[in-house]
Amino acid sequence: MRLNVPIRLRWSDLDAYGHVNNAEMLRLLEEARILALWAPDEAAARVDSGEAIGASTAVLDSRPGADTLSLMAHQEIEYLVPIPYQRQPLNVQLWVSGLGGASMDLCYEVRSPAGVQPEVVYARAATTLVLVDRESGRPRRINERERAAWSPYVEPAIQFHRRGR
Amino acid sequence: MRLNVPIRLRWSDLDAYGHVNNAEMLRLLEEARILALWAPDEAAARVDSGEAIGASTAVLDSRPGADTLSLMAHQEIEYLVPIPYQRQPLNVQLWVSGLGGASMDLCYEVRSPAGVQPEVVYARAATTLVLVDRESGRPRRINERERAAWSPYVEPAIQFHRRGR
Amino acid sequence: MRLNVPIRLRWSDLDAYGHVNNAEMLRLLEEARILALWAPDEAAARVDSGEAIGASTAVLDSRPGADTLSLMAHQEIEYLVPIPYQRQPLNVQLWVSGLGGASMDLCYEVRSPAGVQPEVVYARAATTLVLVDRESGRPRRINERERAAWSPYVEPAIQFHRRGR
Amino acid sequence: MRLNVPIRLRWSDLDAYGHVNNAEMLRLLEEARILALWAPDEAAARVDSGEAIGASTAVLDSRPGADTLSLMAHQEIEYLVPIPYQRQPLNVQLWVSGLGGASMDLCYEVRSPAGVQPEVVYARAATTLVLVDRESGRPRRINERERAAWSPYVEPAIQFHRRGR
Repeated sequence: MRLNVPIRLRWSDLDAYGHVNNAEMLRLLEEARILALWAPDEAAARVDSGEAIGASTAVLDSRPGADTLSLMAHQEIEYLVPIPYQRQPLNVQLWVSGLGGASMDLCYEVRSPAGVQPEVVYARAATTLVLVDRESGRPRRINERERAAWSPYVEPAIQFHRRGR
Repeated sequence: MRLNVPIRLRWSDLDAYGHVNNAEMLRLLEEARILALWAPDEAAARVDSGEAIGASTAVLDSRPGADTLSLMAHQEIEYLVPIPYQRQPLNVQLWVSGLGGASMDLCYEVRSPAGVQPEVVYARAATTLVLVDRESGRPRRINERERAAWSPYVEPAIQFHRRGR
Repeated sequence: MRLNVPIRLRWSDLDAYGHVNNAEMLRLLEEARILALWAPDEAAARVDSGEAIGASTAVLDSRPGADTLSLMAHQEIEYLVPIPYQRQPLNVQLWVSGLGGASMDLCYEVRSPAGVQPEVVYARAATTLVLVDRESGRPRRINERERAAWSPYVEPAIQFHRRGR
Repeated sequence: MRLNVPIRLRWSDLDAYGHVNNAEMLRLLEEARILALWAPDEAAARVDSGEAIGASTAVLDSRPGADTLSLMAHQEIEYLVPIPYQRQPLNVQLWVSGLGGASMDLCYEVRSPAGVQPEVVYARAATTLVLVDRESGRPRRINERERAAWSPYVEPAIQFHRRGR
């Protein structure tokens, strides 16, 4: 099973080539990941309606000041089609390709906005996150609640076609 | 009358002080302005439901490749309260404080997400845009359709309290 | 007297219009301001040669973890000429137009790289900063050392030609 | 042989965790790559002194309006140590791990500013670029001049320790 997270482009995500900048693409992944995994703040929890993004998966308390930092250890991305400016939110599909003791592997596909046909897969990516205890600076184990929330979204990892020599 | 445009923060809008960076604040205004004024691309037009942002005001054809560039001439912003990270989209209120021949003055208030109480006004801003013909590089007049679309949103300009010496 | 701070553009400062994005322009000011005013970290202090930027003015201890936050209260910018991509660092001129009790007004001109002829003034700007004590969250007075360091750079404020209605 | 490209952090590269944001790290690579490979504009060519970055390698005409686009096909990065704010430019080492017909593989190490001891390797990365003819949108061959300029910097590719499952 995959999560579908709508992520709106910003005008400034484009560079002078007229499409979304290569580094900015990782920003789209970051936004999808945060909406999918981070527990909402109180205000959001009160305002959110039932159809909230990550309703069952947003259980990681990783906001500024929280006990856990989620640190990026590794990231890989394959750019398939340049992304032009578009107004509708892109659909970032996200799933879990591995749950370790204190780390998790996430995979992503950046796709056309929901409903747009023909659908384009613009990019595929994988990232490895490590959960770190803010106080000690040491990795901390994924707890049972997190594991239960994320396990339904385990799917096989992306096989990248193009890896540098 | 004012437009209310929901603009979601990104995690990277915050700097190491832990709140939205001063320059990034203008990015929030830019996103609100584009959603409010720029005509949607075809895909968006087909997918958008009735409650689309800027349904009556998004008439400016200013996307990459279009005939009109909207160039920033002047910008002023007053920062009232630092913006912490929050998951719900901020409410950017936007109105027109002046319509010239080829330029327009917009005012903004960056506010708490819709429904959050007590509501905070984080910042107030004003920007002057000039419409420029891409071909000639010269200002081009606001046309009748644009003027009609934007006139309902004319309200008095912001009086800034704090201006540098 | 004015400080001249070389600030290199980044490729991603440009948007799809092919010139430096309006919000990103404030980033150039921010970088000039930090290099001019913030006290260098230890590593930088050891490595810096004599010709360091802000050799006499970089006395404000405002880095993450320091006692003072420098918060932006007001910002105004006039865009004169779009900035195309260029490899050489732009010359950001910076001076002090006012020193209050706990706040300072800075003015800027964003100019062509040093030595490029004819020289272009791309933008003019003014910002008001407030020094805030991290602990108490309250404004703190500009101290004698800071005032002495910055006073030689006091010059008249910019008169903006174009202010929104 | 490796190129050493000094890349200055910007304050806004840091996020609310207080170190350089994971996506922003690719921006540092992008800047190093452009300074190393892209032919300088005329103004820069006239102003540059002998010790210019990429004096012998900056031969790719890839600026806005040029005949060649350099498009990113694949990118991989391993984050070793979080990067705190620092004033001195980081040293981004860059080398060529593969030269194909129309594509090239670059490797990078993001290191402490030159002269800072002990030296830290903050991140290691690899990217695959494809040269594309702007007119036809099709890959174009690396020409003899480019191949000659870049061949001295061929070194073995990075072996990444940590790849997602």
